[in-house]
Amino acid sequence: ARTGLAEAVYGPGKSPEQCAAAVAGLLAGDGEGPVILTRADDDQVKAALAAAPGAQTTPTGPGLQTLVWRAAPPREGAVPVLTAGTGDLPVAREAAAVLAGYGLDSPVVADVGVAGLHRVLAHRETLETADVVVVVAGMEGALASVAAGLTSAPVVAVPTSTGYGASFEGVTALLAMLSSCSPGVSVVGIDNGFGAACAAVRILGARQGAA
Amino acid sequence: ARTGLAEAVYGPGKSPEQCAAAVAGLLAGDGEGPVILTRADDDQVKAALAAAPGAQTTPTGPGLQTLVWRAAPPREGAVPVLTAGTGDLPVAREAAAVLAGYGLDSPVVADVGVAGLHRVLAHRETLETADVVVVVAGMEGALASVAAGLTSAPVVAVPTSTGYGASFEGVTALLAMLSSCSPGVSVVGIDNGFGAACAAVRILGARQGAA
Amino acid sequence: ARTGLAEAVYGPGKSPEQCAAAVAGLLAGDGEGPVILTRADDDQVKAALAAAPGAQTTPTGPGLQTLVWRAAPPREGAVPVLTAGTGDLPVAREAAAVLAGYGLDSPVVADVGVAGLHRVLAHRETLETADVVVVVAGMEGALASVAAGLTSAPVVAVPTSTGYGASFEGVTALLAMLSSCSPGVSVVGIDNGFGAACAAVRILGARQGAA
Amino acid sequence: ARTGLAEAVYGPGKSPEQCAAAVAGLLAGDGEGPVILTRADDDQVKAALAAAPGAQTTPTGPGLQTLVWRAAPPREGAVPVLTAGTGDLPVAREAAAVLAGYGLDSPVVADVGVAGLHRVLAHRETLETADVVVVVAGMEGALASVAAGLTSAPVVAVPTSTGYGASFEGVTALLAMLSSCSPGVSVVGIDNGFGAACAAVRILGARQGAA
Amino acid sequence: ARTGLAEAVYGPGKSPEQCAAAVAGLLAGDGEGPVILTRADDDQVKAALAAAPGAQTTPTGPGLQTLVWRAAPPREGAVPVLTAGTGDLPVAREAAAVLAGYGLDSPVVADVGVAGLHRVLAHRETLETADVVVVVAGMEGALASVAAGLTSAPVVAVPTSTGYGASFEGVTALLAMLSSCSPGVSVVGIDNGFGAACAAVRILGARQGAA
Amino acid sequence: ARTGLAEAVYGPGKSPEQCAAAVAGLLAGDGEGPVILTRADDDQVKAALAAAPGAQTTPTGPGLQTLVWRAAPPREGAVPVLTAGTGDLPVAREAAAVLAGYGLDSPVVADVGVAGLHRVLAHRETLETADVVVVVAGMEGALASVAAGLTSAPVVAVPTSTGYGASFEGVTALLAMLSSCSPGVSVVGIDNGFGAACAAVRILGARQGAA
Amino acid sequence: ARTGLAEAVYGPGKSPEQCAAAVAGLLAGDGEGPVILTRADDDQVKAALAAAPGAQTTPTGPGLQTLVWRAAPPREGAVPVLTAGTGDLPVAREAAAVLAGYGLDSPVVADVGVAGLHRVLAHRETLETADVVVVVAGMEGALASVAAGLTSAPVVAVPTSTGYGASFEGVTALLAMLSSCSPGVSVVGIDNGFGAACAAVRILGARQGAA
Amino acid sequence: ARTGLAEAVYGPGKSPEQCAAAVAGLLAGDGEGPVILTRADDDQVKAALAAAPGAQTTPTGPGLQTLVWRAAPPREGAVPVLTAGTGDLPVAREAAAVLAGYGLDSPVVADVGVAGLHRVLAHRETLETADVVVVVAGMEGALASVAAGLTSAPVVAVPTSTGYGASFEGVTALLAMLSSCSPGVSVVGIDNGFGAACAAVRILGARQGAA
Ligand SMILES: Nc1ncnc2c1ncn2[C@@H]1O[C@H](COP(=O)(O)O)[C@@H](O)[C@H]1O
Ligand SMILES: Nc1ncnc2c1ncn2[C@@H]1O[C@H](COP(=O)(O)O)[C@@H](O)[C@H]1O
Ligand SMILES: Nc1ncnc2c1ncn2[C@@H]1O[C@H](COP(=O)(O)O)[C@@H](O)[C@H]1O
Ligand SMILES: Nc1ncnc2c1ncn2[C@@H]1O[C@H](COP(=O)(O)O)[C@@H](O)[C@H]1O
Ligand SMILES: [Mg+2]
Ligand SMILES: [Mg+2]
Ligand SMILES: [Mg+2]
Ligand SMILES: [Mg+2]
Ligand SMILES: [Mg+2]
Ligand SMILES: [Mg+2]
Ligand SMILES: [Mg+2]
Ligand SMILES: [Mg+2]
Repeated sequence: ARTGLAEAVYGPGKSPEQCAAAVAGLLAGDGEGPVILTRADDDQVKAALAAAPGAQTTPTGPGLQTLVWRAAPPREGAVPVLTAGTGDLPVAREAAAVLAGYGLDSPVVADVGVAGLHRVLAHRETLETADVVVVVAGMEGALASVAAGLTSAPVVAVPTSTGYGASFEGVTALLAMLSSCSPGVSVVGIDNGFGAACAAVRILGARQGAA
Repeated sequence: ARTGLAEAVYGPGKSPEQCAAAVAGLLAGDGEGPVILTRADDDQVKAALAAAPGAQTTPTGPGLQTLVWRAAPPREGAVPVLTAGTGDLPVAREAAAVLAGYGLDSPVVADVGVAGLHRVLAHRETLETADVVVVVAGMEGALASVAAGLTSAPVVAVPTSTGYGASFEGVTALLAMLSSCSPGVSVVGIDNGFGAACAAVRILGARQGAA
Repeated sequence: ARTGLAEAVYGPGKSPEQCAAAVAGLLAGDGEGPVILTRADDDQVKAALAAAPGAQTTPTGPGLQTLVWRAAPPREGAVPVLTAGTGDLPVAREAAAVLAGYGLDSPVVADVGVAGLHRVLAHRETLETADVVVVVAGMEGALASVAAGLTSAPVVAVPTSTGYGASFEGVTALLAMLSSCSPGVSVVGIDNGFGAACAAVRILGARQGAA
Repeated sequence: ARTGLAEAVYGPGKSPEQCAAAVAGLLAGDGEGPVILTRADDDQVKAALAAAPGAQTTPTGPGLQTLVWRAAPPREGAVPVLTAGTGDLPVAREAAAVLAGYGLDSPVVADVGVAGLHRVLAHRETLETADVVVVVAGMEGALASVAAGLTSAPVVAVPTSTGYGASFEGVTALLAMLSSCSPGVSVVGIDNGFGAACAAVRILGARQGAA
Repeated sequence: ARTGLAEAVYGPGKSPEQCAAAVAGLLAGDGEGPVILTRADDDQVKAALAAAPGAQTTPTGPGLQTLVWRAAPPREGAVPVLTAGTGDLPVAREAAAVLAGYGLDSPVVADVGVAGLHRVLAHRETLETADVVVVVAGMEGALASVAAGLTSAPVVAVPTSTGYGASFEGVTALLAMLSSCSPGVSVVGIDNGFGAACAAVRILGARQGAA
Repeated sequence: ARTGLAEAVYGPGKSPEQCAAAVAGLLAGDGEGPVILTRADDDQVKAALAAAPGAQTTPTGPGLQTLVWRAAPPREGAVPVLTAGTGDLPVAREAAAVLAGYGLDSPVVADVGVAGLHRVLAHRETLETADVVVVVAGMEGALASVAAGLTSAPVVAVPTSTGYGASFEGVTALLAMLSSCSPGVSVVGIDNGFGAACAAVRILGARQGAA
Repeated sequence: ARTGLAEAVYGPGKSPEQCAAAVAGLLAGDGEGPVILTRADDDQVKAALAAAPGAQTTPTGPGLQTLVWRAAPPREGAVPVLTAGTGDLPVAREAAAVLAGYGLDSPVVADVGVAGLHRVLAHRETLETADVVVVVAGMEGALASVAAGLTSAPVVAVPTSTGYGASFEGVTALLAMLSSCSPGVSVVGIDNGFGAACAAVRILGARQGAA
Repeated sequence: ARTGLAEAVYGPGKSPEQCAAAVAGLLAGDGEGPVILTRADDDQVKAALAAAPGAQTTPTGPGLQTLVWRAAPPREGAVPVLTAGTGDLPVAREAAAVLAGYGLDSPVVADVGVAGLHRVLAHRETLETADVVVVVAGMEGALASVAAGLTSAPVVAVPTSTGYGASFEGVTALLAMLSSCSPGVSVVGIDNGFGAACAAVRILGARQGAA
């Protein structure tokens, strides 16, 4: 893309052939950044790898993978990805896979929801030394506020659709994150681990030359 | 009321005469519990006190008061009322005024929102020794989850309409509190400090019976 | 958990292996309270029991069970669980199963919706002698108001997603319960029988020593 | 109107002159039924009576009146109007004023919400002998279900915008009434006392000859 | 039921055994009115008929039937059921089947939506001579307003979930019907053909008594 | 504007000075089309006319006017503006004033809602000979469907915020218009008479080129 | 249809037999315009073609086709159909297939979303010379505003349900399109490619004689 | 604050005395960063300046100002603030005033909405050389997508409540911004210029550390 960011193909709803063609087209184009296929099922993965071998593959949710072609070489940057519950892991893994496509090796710190504060407090140093923090949560979004109170780094919050009770497919977490009383939290769409990673990459400097 | 709870009159939308007549009618009835007038403006207060002198009066919001007649004698019971922000104070004061009408002297612990965790952690002991905790918050409801993780007492959460940004007149806090990942938080309606106090009084009754 | 409440694993969306590992991990941890697996399907139940035998099992909905390990010994406490319709039974059974894990033998009083008042009035004594009342309803939530008018005990209301017509997956009942004109009703999330039971346990005193 | 029902002018948003002209126009037209002006403020009332003297006037809410010209002679028909709370009275009075315009002398039975069941049960006979029951309620709508369980007459439910907490300007009551588990309750728009009265008149037979 | 209305069992979500037991229980009870099973699939029908033979069966939607035991003898009363589109037929057939259970032989007038006014105008006489009109529509609800302008009979409107575009599973039609500018339209829940029929039966009762 | 359409200034929220400056700036710019100020109050009108005399002024709502400078010369084109109720007139007048600014003399046909079909049917010829029909309605939007069934011209529908009952500030009409079962109705935002007029002007351009 | 527009049958939810019968009935009726079957699956297509051979068939989404009988002869008129993403193609193809049924050969310009402005700017001339522009988009609706700024032709916008993140099944795009700051954009229902084509045909003159 | 960010007081709803006391308290505390009072009216400003002289004052909306005490010395960093319309200026000015409090001199680029693409394209270089871009828009949010396609810098989007038509007090813009098809846009709450500035300051910190 002209902005130096990755080109991405969103798998759901596309046929294996469409996925393969889209990926091949992007690799043949004049861009130079990573090419990413997200939430691909087994057939889509197979077709895409047949058309364009050599991708990094990361399992995200049950039966779904994120693939990265033309991944960037390793670079500096601490972008921990926190989750409130274990159910938030697929979205966190999607974010981490996309960050990896940009050369960033990001730890996923799972299940540190605020119902047991000691869990997130145990990762205080990770938060304090982070360059960007990604917070993934599907119930109330409280973790984004708490995390933002423990770091001066930018916090990008991702609501997930994995809650229950009154979580309304992520809407409750989305609204709570937008209403965070910790100033400077910003938010991406529901389940949008890809978008959070892109925001983090923009923040770090999309092209390494920008740093 | 037949349930032993207070009789209450909700001021807004009633004329001073209607307030006075409602209060006088309840005092003349066959109940014996406290009689409460909530969110009364100056004219309503004046008319009600003229018709029925001798109420406890507590200022709650700007120009509004809660009045209690036939208040119960002091009783045991620790029911701290926490607020996330200073804007949540009117609702917290309404809860405390109603609790006082039942003989409960409840501290209001204001402005301990989770953006600065040290603030709520400073009140850990209050939480651990509480019989019931009332949590009042208008932005994300995160404080209810955090508080419930710091006590084994029942937590009654009250969303307030005082937030901004994406708080939608209390709906965001309401949903977040209902989705709390701390098990055992229960929730009352938006700005319903009165209802939270009543729930606490019901609980203290249950506990006394259980002891 | 540090609050003395149970540790729980929510089955839906987890693989049998994840359920088994989560349960085993909690049993091996330093907690001493009950460990609960909710809404587990047959495969999840099998895997969990293989990894950790000896649970109490309660069928809740069609093909779903709640499992409790390390259940508490029987204790005193009357926590009747009322339902408005027969469709609300799975949620009521989840609440009762969790209460049983805490040593509470709770009767489920089913199908006493307010369209036929004689049905709920037939259980007046149960209500009057209760320590906590759990009300489960998926259509209008009216039962919570009516029940709260018949008892001075705390009423914890659980909206369910089982209605139709204009019940919007539990939202109508949720809002109606929050708006109850019976003071002191508090509410948990939609279908959250687990949460209602936890609220009841907090109310009774999470650790028997508190009573 | 061609359907034999009244012609009505809705006051809010119209100038006194517009109200007066609309009423005069309808009286000069070829209809023969009642002509009604609803929710008129003092200036609108004055202008309308100047242009067309001789209306029945009924105060409904604070500073608002309903006026009826060419009212029908008294007729048979028991249409009690119940309200859950005193705040629902203006809407109930609008319904009663419109019914009066059709010759129906309807009692308003106020403040019989289900939080204290004895209140509505005291009016059992009124319900059992009614031809149509109008139920007006602004919090949960429970009263419509309970009333419909106590009569075989048609029940027309009117949600009102007078609640608080989580009543969302009448939406909660509207949804609860639509979801009533008492079969055969039908519902009109929020605060629409006028519409409920019209529905009752249709039910009774808009023209006396139909009975 | 004590109100003289039918007892009904709602099929969806119940096992065949539960349906059969519920029906048999109602038939063995002390009621005397019709017993109805709605939206029953083939297995539920089979089980219910095995337990209680001799029901009237009416196919409503694809693979679904309404069954009536102890149907009332034929009675007078014109209750035409209009639909805006052919997709609204299952709900209209449910209404007609329930009306038949009360002895009412109701014509279903299908596909007379207002986009082609000649269609509904061709049924003018049916409307003018009706005792009650049931209007079933899933897109905009306009048909309820138009029909109510063509008759002085009560109009009971049923929104359906069958629309598309911006019909939001019946919510658009529901709101439009509630906002009808034809006074005296009343509304039941989405897809609630059963409820509309019950409302019509209540109304016909009222009329018979009133005549 | 580069598209040949008018430049417009939306009055509400702007100071008189801001309105005057915005209008003067547009008139001094390089555009040649009409310059329009909508929903201007008396002070805004005065300031704008002082800065730029010679506008066409049309009263729209109470105390509000639409002003047009550099109006186009009269042109052919039949664009009737229908309203369902008298309360919809301000929006209809805004549309007509903007159309007048483009040289189109458009009749406003008011209060032809579908509750009395004869009213709209009396204007059949106007509909059949129209080039574009603008339909303005604040309750159910039914008029748009009915009108579109009576003409082959394009129908642009404008929901208004003037309803009550369950019209939710125009949302009900908006959704109903979008769900119209008459194919080819298109819709603009709530109260957006200006936008409907602009759509009509675009359409007349297209037709002229097409003829 | 009396308006000269096509008669259409919406496939989803109908049995193959119902589709075939509906199509055959329309062809046997007294209309003369095209007869269209939309979103038909393979079985529906087979049954419809058996009953009425000789339709134009266009694949739209996965396993779905649009069929046109009695298509109009080719006519003049430039109606480009733009899409923001590739996921919007099925709706765009439905619009193009319906336009083809009216004799209009419309290019689909896919994947020109505003995230890369050069993509839409490359089609400037197509926009400038269009008679009507149809814009299909499922995420934000921004493309409608941008396109409307590049042409003076009428722009009909179609939101689609294909987005993710916070697109809420098309609601976000719908609202954004309705709020377009480019005056004169009008909008049809979500995924309503058929309706957009009908609006375009109305605009061009439903019968060629109108031009 | 412990995170190194400013302490802020939100004016609306507070008395002048409360504002003054809150500001004075923060200045007397142990923090060292800027202290900010936002959306203060004239009385609040006066009281705050009396208690704590020497603030930077910036007018934002009509009658409202943002005050900054203990502002940071000038620092490097290009954070342009773009607005779609002139009505978005108050929020943009709030963002700029807060950025100024951190030593950042940020240009406000107003009224560059996408209806006229040339307006935003004229600021291409500003976008390309920015460190962070803040986009403020109240109608559709399209500007955030377009801007993010023209820069590789992080884009923080702020929806505003200033739209009309179908903008629903900022909700439409909020959702559209969250659904942006330009990867890496993140969003703050409605009208939250303060929050966007804080996010930008966090990001500039991260970038400095990364460089
Ligand atoms: N049936 C249930 N209903 C509501 N919440 C539950 C249920 N079962 C477990 N939970 C909650 O879900 C949490 C576990 O989530 P997870 O880590 O994703 O398994 C527990 O701590 C409980 O608070
Ligand atoms: N109080 C009321 N509540 C609901 N609808 C009303 C009321 N008063 C009048 N209406 C309706 O509003 C219509 C008059 O609207 P308008 O032409 O704008 O005055 C009447 O025909 C009635 O259907
Ligand atoms: N098709 C239907 N639509 C709406 N409500 C129904 C229907 N069938 C049964 N009901 C209602 O559902 C109740 C039975 O609910 P349940 O006890 O769960 O079977 C009955 O009393 C009716 O009020
Ligand atoms: N009455 C109106 N209704 C809807 N949109 C309008 C109206 N008047 C002006 N506009 C739009 O608002 C824009 C001006 O907004 P602003 O720059 O804030 O004055 C114009 O370009 C029009 O698109
Ligand atoms: Mg967990
Ligand atoms: Mg604070
Ligand atoms: Mg039942
Ligand atoms: Mg009362
Ligand atoms: Mg049809
Ligand atoms: Mg009218
Ligand atoms: Mg694309
Ligand atoms: Mg502008």
